[in-house]
Amino acid sequence: MKKNGDTLKVHVTKEYFSYGAAPNEQRLESRLKLGPVTVAYETLGALNSNRDNAILICHALTGDSHVAGNYPEDSLEAPPGWWDFMVGSGKGIDTDRYFVICCNILGSCMGSTGPASINPATNKPYGLDFPMVTIGDMVNSQKQLLDYLGVRKLHSVVGGSVGGMQVLEWCVRFPSMVRSAIPIATTMRHSALAIAFNEVARQAIMADPNWNKGAYYDGSKPDTGLAVARMIGHVTYLSDEAMRRKFGRNLQNKNDFSFNFTGDFQVESYLHHQGSKFVKRFDANSVLYITKAADYFDLTDKKITEKSLHGLSGTNSKFLVISYSSDWLYPTYQAKELVQALKRTSQDVSFCEIEADCGHDAFLIQDKRLSALIGGFLHGLTGS
Amino acid sequence: MKKNGDTLKVHVTKEYFSYGAAPNEQRLESRLKLGPVTVAYETLGALNSNRDNAILICHALTGDSHVAGNYPEDSLEAPPGWWDFMVGSGKGIDTDRYFVICCNILGSCMGSTGPASINPATNKPYGLDFPMVTIGDMVNSQKQLLDYLGVRKLHSVVGGSVGGMQVLEWCVRFPSMVRSAIPIATTMRHSALAIAFNEVARQAIMADPNWNKGAYYDGSKPDTGLAVARMIGHVTYLSDEAMRRKFGRNLQNKNDFSFNFTGDFQVESYLHHQGSKFVKRFDANSVLYITKAADYFDLTDKKITEKSLHGLSGTNSKFLVISYSSDWLYPTYQAKELVQALKRTSQDVSFCEIEADCGHDAFLIQDKRLSALIGGFLHGLTGS
Repeated sequence: MKKNGDTLKVHVTKEYFSYGAAPNEQRLESRLKLGPVTVAYETLGALNSNRDNAILICHALTGDSHVAGNYPEDSLEAPPGWWDFMVGSGKGIDTDRYFVICCNILGSCMGSTGPASINPATNKPYGLDFPMVTIGDMVNSQKQLLDYLGVRKLHSVVGGSVGGMQVLEWCVRFPSMVRSAIPIATTMRHSALAIAFNEVARQAIMADPNWNKGAYYDGSKPDTGLAVARMIGHVTYLSDEAMRRKFGRNLQNKNDFSFNFTGDFQVESYLHHQGSKFVKRFDANSVLYITKAADYFDLTDKKITEKSLHGLSGTNSKFLVISYSSDWLYPTYQAKELVQALKRTSQDVSFCEIEADCGHDAFLIQDKRLSALIGGFLHGLTGS
Repeated sequence: MKKNGDTLKVHVTKEYFSYGAAPNEQRLESRLKLGPVTVAYETLGALNSNRDNAILICHALTGDSHVAGNYPEDSLEAPPGWWDFMVGSGKGIDTDRYFVICCNILGSCMGSTGPASINPATNKPYGLDFPMVTIGDMVNSQKQLLDYLGVRKLHSVVGGSVGGMQVLEWCVRFPSMVRSAIPIATTMRHSALAIAFNEVARQAIMADPNWNKGAYYDGSKPDTGLAVARMIGHVTYLSDEAMRRKFGRNLQNKNDFSFNFTGDFQVESYLHHQGSKFVKRFDANSVLYITKAADYFDLTDKKITEKSLHGLSGTNSKFLVISYSSDWLYPTYQAKELVQALKRTSQDVSFCEIEADCGHDAFLIQDKRLSALIGGFLHGLTGS
């Protein structure tokens, strides 16, 4: 990691690790097989000689390995990684002390193996031949990466939303490797409401004729359906309060209503913008696979996840559970259910509900309270 | 109205009233013109000699004039009208005492003039040539019907959701005709969140290639997009609690996950069912027009509505405002804002929040509390 004297930008590089070279070598929770698997990852800071100062950051639905800093080839205007306010020298997750790892999840399209990757059996993109992957499968691929990097113990595993599910799955799958865990704005079981929103988003994608049962990689992409799916998502990431504050009933054209269907209100333009921005960077099939993995997630049920919360008994990870007061996708009552379930297995759990009107996406918005909370928790572990 | 001795079914007939015979005779709030206009309506009970015992019931987004009873031609299994538990002999809205009128709103597709109606200028369905209509335009067409029926004064005007908006618009447009008003699960201004959901539903419809800019009446209909739009709607009509109670994480196939995209959870099947049921009975363009009318609705702003709440000063309608504790589309805080706004114009307002976990659609679900509340309020007026 170097600092550029002119811009003080932190430079990071996206790297790739592959395993399971033989086709279909890795068995998944679905009993289907996949291979070879590539994991795109980025690191900041340095691993100490004890190999125990690593922090794994797990990204959410459409995130990627680019958690902080800039690529050397970035233009001066290029934004840094998605959690740059949290991760860096002297920040909440302090790269002067910790070796930070963030990798793209299995099933995504940002460098790790997913439905847009080439299927070695056909030399074409997988499409729907990609096997269903679970949060557990994502965590297993992260474990392979940590083994490769020589990390023996995680000082912490941190993540929000679908990233928080990975955090919890880490704790039940590899409890002895996890010194602490920070699940943020997440749940231990995906609710009917959350499943419903995901299913409507999937239906919007699959309704697009360009989707073509997932086989669209050599033609037009299902951009229209994907944009609708993203708009649905964005409504759930915000809150009633935030939308009132940000948009209210403000019009694009202050003078009058259009009396047509092009969109009058600023909130409509915002959603259109989010939809068209998203289709440029993300693969529709990856949305299908990752939302399905989230829907299947239920740590209170061993239907597919071989390990459940009961597996935590006898371990001594420390937990910091964080929720947001206006998150209605994974509301605070679900965080409290998680806290109670953890306490029943005698875990050391701290819980904080942050008052914020920004809804589910609040953890992605710069907030000194969140940085201080996480920094203090991590520092406390080091001192103990 | 006759009673069938075998089934005790109440028989009603759908009737039609037309006005504005010359094409484009009626001026709308958009300054566009429309005509002729047909209003489909049904009545129960009898108008008294003073012509002042009428109750107008305003239906919601996808409702119709068939508020209660059965058509004579119905099969024995045919369900009665959409508010049959509320409207009938001895019920909350007692047809032995009141002359009940319910008409299909302008812009709909259940008998009144809307985008699927024949445009006399082209002899083809209007499609997007149908002019934008507002809640005020809907109320104006209802007023024409009441004039035709000889109704001078409304004992009450009652409705939920988009029907509640019509109730409020009645009060500000024709205050001297309204003795009482019962707006249920509604708002006096459509919020950014509600606009956002409506816009995503519209985008889902317009994303369907069969939509063809609204000109699909002689070909395949945009059923796929309309089904997605309806699924979005249904998520907002329910609540987190109701979905947990009704569906939780129950699977269609109890034995295992499918690991494909056909839908595993009962909540998904429910949404699919709602989507496919809806496309058989409703027109996609009508969803576009009516949701837009709801989005434009704002009684605190005179941008398009010529009358606002200030118009109520000096009138003496009595109000019963009803909200539901789990309605997150038009939450109780919005009902309270309405109550406060009405009080500022010195209206006689009663307010009741009903504790129910069923979400926005609660007013459509049989509930003795709602019947008793409305019945008591209406009876109290008669006695006073």
